[in-house]
Amino acid sequence: MSRYQNLPAGALPASDVPLRYGIVLFPGFQALDAFGPLDALNTLALNYPLDLCVLAESIEPVSTKPPSGVIDLPLGSNFAQSIQPTHTFSNAPPIDVLIVPGGFGVRSEENMKPVVGYIQDVYPSLKYLITVCTGSGLAARAGVLDGRKATTNKRAWEWATHLRPQVEWIARARWVEDGNIWTAAGVSAGLDLVIAFMEKVYGVGVGKMIADTLEYDAHTDAHWDPFAELNGLGAS
Amino acid sequence: MSRYQNLPAGALPASDVPLRYGIVLFPGFQALDAFGPLDALNTLALNYPLDLCVLAESIEPVSTKPPSGVIDLPLGSNFAQSIQPTHTFSNAPPIDVLIVPGGFGVRSEENMKPVVGYIQDVYPSLKYLITVCTGSGLAARAGVLDGRKATTNKRAWEWATHLRPQVEWIARARWVEDGNIWTAAGVSAGLDLVIAFMEKVYGVGVGKMIADTLEYDAHTDAHWDPFAELNGLGAS
Repeated sequence: MSRYQNLPAGALPASDVPLRYGIVLFPGFQALDAFGPLDALNTLALNYPLDLCVLAESIEPVSTKPPSGVIDLPLGSNFAQSIQPTHTFSNAPPIDVLIVPGGFGVRSEENMKPVVGYIQDVYPSLKYLITVCTGSGLAARAGVLDGRKATTNKRAWEWATHLRPQVEWIARARWVEDGNIWTAAGVSAGLDLVIAFMEKVYGVGVGKMIADTLEYDAHTDAHWDPFAELNGLGAS
Repeated sequence: MSRYQNLPAGALPASDVPLRYGIVLFPGFQALDAFGPLDALNTLALNYPLDLCVLAESIEPVSTKPPSGVIDLPLGSNFAQSIQPTHTFSNAPPIDVLIVPGGFGVRSEENMKPVVGYIQDVYPSLKYLITVCTGSGLAARAGVLDGRKATTNKRAWEWATHLRPQVEWIARARWVEDGNIWTAAGVSAGLDLVIAFMEKVYGVGVGKMIADTLEYDAHTDAHWDPFAELNGLGAS
């Protein structure tokens, strides 16, 4: 057995970085919204003593399948994955960083309520809040983005931004950092966000090390965003 | 309710494309190896009636945590996700396409055996076999890559390629297509592979449609691979 790789010279010690993560899941979450950041963190956990709790309303496995009533799937489509939570919102342990994915599930009021309630409860004790894709819609509904800059999925832009006009929504952004809240654009943008987050919060070279380990060609410019224009959105 | 988006003009009808997918999981699989391709396919399943079975040795949830004895995690590291299988290898339904992820788990002989046995059993009935990262090591061990061109994770190159010298291993490749077997380089390369696979197998414009939906800037050149050089590997 051996350690996988040594940290770069710019890496901060474990005493100076957030170690306790949580992710919220709900029926119809987008798998890559969650597993982009999570797998980068799985890899970082080879070097830092990171802890993860997987949170949902109940302890039953949570499916990526869009809830019925949100979108029509082709007849016979049965393509989904189910993730096992470790805790419910009501018995969640203390955490430093919360990750909130998006997906078709955020369009279900029934799904939204418990997640939004948990975000409201836990936000004051967090060091960082990270959202991916329409996950920023859940954070917006919780009120924690009021007066902050944030972004979201570009194809779901109209729907997501109308959830909460008190947010300063930024259309052309791969991700937005405002205070202790980091919001990513659609789906795969969560990977770029988490690499930039590691580079800033864990030290220079750490994000690059993790991207190289994942053989991932990360976009490191938060303003890079061809998908805003592709979806007919302006510069701000 | 509505259909999410219309297929491009070049898309083939459902009668002409593979519809039944399986993915093998084992303890210590790499999450993004699996969820890159799966989430692209989750999105394709909004347009085609795709079916997925999640296969493992038993029906118990399968954790991404590296098996003990394979790699030292920092003291106190407890960062993993568990996925619920739908079938075991012994009751797997017929499938058209099998996806094989990699990860530290492939370094455990105990893990390898049932997965390699399933690949050997099912390969003759498959339309396509897709591997990601060191998942090609499992396919190699099954003998189905003998005499074929294939690639794998570039940091694990020495270990993976020595599993089976009968394979024509290609060092500088984001992915390799040889007959009905597609093998990807490390971790995030699975996303580029699956986009190229869709473009070829489901029709012109389909891969691009899915990449745009995931706001993903796909590498569309199979020869693009800075990670070969980064890991000291030559051109072939």
